[in-house]
Formats: sequence, structure tokens, C-alpha cells
Amino acid sequence: MAYILWQGQIMKEATAQASLFDRGYQFGDGIYEMVRLYDGQFFALQKHLERLNKSAEKLDMTLPYTSAELTHLLYQLIQKDHADNGNVYVQVTRGTSTRDHLYSRTETPILSAYLLPQKDHRQAHTSGIAAYVTEDIRWLRCDIKSLNLLGNVMAKRQAADHQCTEAIFHRDGMITEGASTNIFLVNNGTLYTHPANNFILDGITRQEVIDIAEERHINVVQEPFPKEVLAHADEAFLTGTTIEIMPIHSFTGDVQVTLPIGPITKRIQEAFTARIGITTTNTSS
Amino acid sequence: MAYILWQGQIMKEATAQASLFDRGYQFGDGIYEMVRLYDGQFFALQKHLERLNKSAEKLDMTLPYTSAELTHLLYQLIQKDHADNGNVYVQVTRGTSTRDHLYSRTETPILSAYLLPQKDHRQAHTSGIAAYVTEDIRWLRCDIKSLNLLGNVMAKRQAADHQCTEAIFHRDGMITEGASTNIFLVNNGTLYTHPANNFILDGITRQEVIDIAEERHINVVQEPFPKEVLAHADEAFLTGTTIEIMPIHSFTGDVQVTLPIGPITKRIQEAFTARIGITTTNTSS
Repeated sequence: MAYILWQGQIMKEATAQASLFDRGYQFGDGIYEMVRLYDGQFFALQKHLERLNKSAEKLDMTLPYTSAELTHLLYQLIQKDHADNGNVYVQVTRGTSTRDHLYSRTETPILSAYLLPQKDHRQAHTSGIAAYVTEDIRWLRCDIKSLNLLGNVMAKRQAADHQCTEAIFHRDGMITEGASTNIFLVNNGTLYTHPANNFILDGITRQEVIDIAEERHINVVQEPFPKEVLAHADEAFLTGTTIEIMPIHSFTGDVQVTLPIGPITKRIQEAFTARIGITTTNTSS
Repeated sequence: MAYILWQGQIMKEATAQASLFDRGYQFGDGIYEMVRLYDGQFFALQKHLERLNKSAEKLDMTLPYTSAELTHLLYQLIQKDHADNGNVYVQVTRGTSTRDHLYSRTETPILSAYLLPQKDHRQAHTSGIAAYVTEDIRWLRCDIKSLNLLGNVMAKRQAADHQCTEAIFHRDGMITEGASTNIFLVNNGTLYTHPANNFILDGITRQEVIDIAEERHINVVQEPFPKEVLAHADEAFLTGTTIEIMPIHSFTGDVQVTLPIGPITKRIQEAFTARIGITTTNTSS
């Protein structure tokens, strides 16, 4: 994290600072993406940039660069950082203005990006993690990858205070997603996950898993399911850019049960690992 | 807005800048208050600081100063600014950290404060404003005065696009509050407003109005009411630090009706103006 992409320039980390009048700072008025870097190549970068564009559209924001320009800038950033692995965090705020809820549509958006280290999840990928089931108190536009993340932040702390790695949300009794992940259940060989509507963020890894399952003729049901179903699942796992495919070995909080780390989860993990390799090979030049 | 209170120092505006790793910038992980300055005196400053403390507690944050210390700093700020009137915006974020939803409870909170000009509302105080009625899509902790304000920001823009000054929210059909205000209805001489629970921000001006009404033996019912009731109200008004008591002359959007600016609204306005004078006199030394 030595360099930062800031206003189109790549500069030393300490040089880049935000105005106190940045609407990102005052209202959380902005969006972001976290893109995984494997062996010098971004994974699913175009899907991330498409989603960034969608988030911007939904918030009536304009991105300062095309996807092609941003791709170029992000590769410049990691070259400057001499980075081959990690995650690049990209954030775009609506820009600065005298503090007023009402934006004018004339603000100039502000983009920042920097590398974040990747945690070593190898042990957890085998042994699984504990998840804390709690109420979803977030807003009704969780489909936008916005900087309004307090509901997620509070749940993550609550989970950690209960010796859990992730919080799993339920809204009106139905499981939606994790605080920074999507969740899948396995029951009788079928995958279950919440549909990609306004209640969840449609994760890129979630999309990869659905794609992998279809390739392997594993049935995927994208329907909301009640939290009580967690207690009767054969297997459960999380998906996310940094955690990839993460088995869940137990739920605590509003649902309490211990689960095995089962064969479907392992198959999906293996297929995902293979896909990373394939993608890297295909996109490297 | 020439000076800024930043990390306990009062400095020139351009000098103060936020880290990109400030959790306020990355997660909207922070809180704020807007305090009105009348003739060199803050109005209801202690109530604002109490609420700031409450917001901090609810988010498991610690404020960097006591209310007495902060009072002193804010008066220093306006003296430096040679300001007698306006609004002082105070923001506290959880502090900086490597980006992670999970905070550690060891972050050092970051407080900034600066003066914002007061708009001239005199004409609107007489003729009223138009309000746009729309769905409340915000999170379920609107009692916390947090920086997660995208739901409010989007509604404010939607209202402006419909030639309205404020958006009025309904959740499950019940009116909650405005995007940056509270709302009161008048029916047969009684005031109606949403109770101060997790669905609204308990405004300081809202509290003043309830206090004024009780003093003058005007009945106040703090119960949720359906949006359809707006169409049958005798009068309606908004309350807020910057708009004070603002009559509504019409609703558009999900409720469409024109209202007179009635006698109860005027009585409350007069009483509030008197109270500002009284408070200023009492607190000036």
C-alpha cells in the first residue's frame, strides 16, 4: 500500500488526502469495488468495473473514467507497487460541495484506489468458519455497492464479539447475505441462495459459483429461505472476493447448529481454484 | 467557513484534510451534529452534544472530548471566524485503520467542525414549501445521527426533481420523517408526529416544538400515522435546526394535496422565535 491512484495520478500514499467537503466523507455518498489480484492479473476485473458502473448509475453518479481507462490505471498502480497478489480497493465519491444533502449533478467525482494485503485463509478454507446469525437492519438498496456500510460494520463487530468471523443477516425471517459476503446452502445436492434483488449485493464470486454449479449440473435455487432452514442444511458456505469459497462449520446467534464441511463445498472450491488459474492464463499476455 | 476545528486545533480551511483510510471516508463510520448559531450564541448546544454522545454510544464509539471541552472549542472556532450567525457542523468518525469492516476499538476518533452559512428562509416561513412523499428505504437505526445518509441524499434529489424542497418518508405506509427534518401534522387543534424510536432522528427542534405545545396546552400525539392522513390534515409543518418551523403548503408524490398555512403553525413559529430570544438572553454572559 505504498502508492495510491488519486485523481488520475499515482502518488505516494501519504500525499493523497481527501477534502473534508468530499461527499464521501460527509454522507458516505460514494461506491466501491474490491478486486482480487492473482499472480499479477486482476480476477474478473471487467465484471467488477461493470458493477461499479451500475452502482454509479443507480446513485445518479458519473464515473470519471471509462472501464478501459480505469483498467489501464489499475495495472499502472500495481506495477508501481511491484504487486502480484492482494486486493485493489477502488472507491468513487460524488465529489466535493458545500455540505448539503442535495447534490447538484455538477460535482466532479473523486476516484481513489490502492492495494490491500490478502489475508491467508488456507486453514479456514479447510476447517471452515463460525457465522453469527442476526437481524438485517440495513437499507433497502443493498444491491448498490455503496459506502453506507454502518449496518455491515456493526454486524461484523457483533459477530467478532461472539467469536465468529462473519455475520449472516435475516430480514423478515429470511436469510439475505453476510456482512461482506454472500451465503449458499446445500440441501440434498442442491444449492440455495438469495436472489440478486435489492436486498443483497450480487457478488462476483457468487456469480462465479452459480456459473460453476451450472457447468457441473448442480441445481441452484435462487429464492429466499427462512433462517430456520440453516439448522437443517447439509452444508453451507460463503463467497467473496477475498475469502473466495469459505465453508461454514457452525452458526450461532439467532440460529445455532454445527455443520460438516461437505463434498459439494469442496467441489465448488476446487472448481473455483481451477477457474482462477484458467482466467489468469487466458488474460495474461 | 474560513477556519476548521481539526484534531483539536483551529486551522485554515485548506490545511485540514482527511486520510483516505479514515473510516468515515470508507464506511460512513461516523456521526454528526448541526448546531445553530444566533447572535453569537449556540442554540440548544448542550442538547446537541448530549445527542452526539448518544449517537457515539450507539455506535460503540468514544468521543475525543467532553461536552465542556467541545463547547469551548466550538466557541473558539466561531470567534476565530468572527461569526455571529450560521450553523456549525460537527463530525466525528471512528478514526483511521487499514480498510476492514471490523473495527478494533483502539481507533482514535477524528473530530472536525466548521461554520456553514444559514440560508434565508424568511419567505418560505410565510408561504410554506412543497414536500414530496416517497418510500422510506433507509436502515432501521435512523435514531443514530450517522454519516450513512445515502437514502436521505437520494430522496432529497428526487424531491428537488419534483420541484419540492423536502422529501417526506413513509415506511410500511406510515409517515416517519423528512430527509433532513421531522414532520408534524395538525388535526382539530392536536399535533401529530412519529414517536422518537429507531425509525426517526429525534430532532432538537422537534423536542422544542413538543415542549412549546405542552406549555401552551396544545395536545401532542406521538404515534405513527398512515400517509393517507396527510391528505386530510388541517396544517402540516417541518422542524429542523436550519429551517426552524417550516410550513408545508402542498404534498406531491405518493400523497397529493394542498394545505393552508394555519394558525397553530403560526403560533408554534412565534413561540419558537421567542424561545430563541429567551435562550440567547439566558446564555449570553
